[in-house]
Amino acid sequence: MSTTVAASPRQTQADRSRDTRLKLMQAVVECLVDVGWAGTTTTLVSERAGVSRGAQLHHFASRGELVAAAVEHLGAESVRALRADSDALGRPVRTPAVVGLIVDFYVSPLFAAALELWVAARTDTALRELVIPLQGRLGRETHRLAVDLLDVDESRRGAREAVQATLDLARGLALANQLTDDSVRRARIVAEWSAQLEERLA
Amino acid sequence: MSTTVAASPRQTQADRSRDTRLKLMQAVVECLVDVGWAGTTTTLVSERAGVSRGAQLHHFASRGELVAAAVEHLGAESVRALRADSDALGRPVRTPAVVGLIVDFYVSPLFAAALELWVAARTDTALRELVIPLQGRLGRETHRLAVDLLDVDESRRGAREAVQATLDLARGLALANQLTDDSVRRARIVAEWSAQLEERLA
Repeated sequence: MSTTVAASPRQTQADRSRDTRLKLMQAVVECLVDVGWAGTTTTLVSERAGVSRGAQLHHFASRGELVAAAVEHLGAESVRALRADSDALGRPVRTPAVVGLIVDFYVSPLFAAALELWVAARTDTALRELVIPLQGRLGRETHRLAVDLLDVDESRRGAREAVQATLDLARGLALANQLTDDSVRRARIVAEWSAQLEERLA
Repeated sequence: MSTTVAASPRQTQADRSRDTRLKLMQAVVECLVDVGWAGTTTTLVSERAGVSRGAQLHHFASRGELVAAAVEHLGAESVRALRADSDALGRPVRTPAVVGLIVDFYVSPLFAAALELWVAARTDTALRELVIPLQGRLGRETHRLAVDLLDVDESRRGAREAVQATLDLARGLALANQLTDDSVRRARIVAEWSAQLEERLA
């Protein structure tokens, strides 16, 4: 009993610490969505998170450390969101629903945040080292999900490429939605491609 | 004769002025490719162009004016490059060559510059007003070229969407090539997509 009581404040301290880190990482992602990579300063992040500069520096000594943690967080959040959306689909899943799921994932604010990092990383060596694994993780995760849901036999000629093309198409559609609402055009393209993919994989 | 002699210096002056403007606009595009949107300062642009700050300010009174001109220049250069590449293809053009042409266009440094503007414009209202027409222009131009080269009857159900999907795929493939060399994977996807598109439009 005394052990439990003694452990409780330690747990609370650990919880608080984890909460603070999480708030800061979430604030980075929100700032990326709202003001872009260039505007995502450590000052703005601490304000957005409601965390003092001192506490922020205690958890993340530099912008680099904070960004690294946020990239990791963004990857984990994206995978979680993708799996939750997938679980919410009925079974068996039809091809248009799978394509829709993947396209919706890339059109989401989480990907807008990733896109900010992706483009900034092209001309920022340190950031690139962080973002290449994120890009790989999101690519692998969406690929695996598509293969599972579509029940694709990847040993068949062209099947793997057809699934990969679906992911590249989804990222292209996400790009087309950054400045204007492209949902009407996108729905037609998703319908057309789903029909082709279904036929291709049949 | 005296008219010609008198006109010559005026022409030279106009030529110089046009050359200076062109150097500055090209320097903006080069800076976007090399250091990204955030790093593309007016100081760096004037250095890169080899044009004095005074001359730069004479031609473009603000960063906004310079960027507006550079966006216009980038659009014109892209269209020119695309048409030149198209003219260089033999006739008749097979589907894989058309898909390859479009994908190569989006994978080029010109599109890397456009991508910098595209993503920055999401969180910059003034820039967005400039970039939305650029996005539209590149989209229309590549679409028209694809329709012409593939001899597509767009009144057929799904044909228009199949061409549009090809452009979105190309932009997605361009994104996948920003941080790492994706050419091997891309070639397989282009081959698979071309085969499907050819069948779809037959």
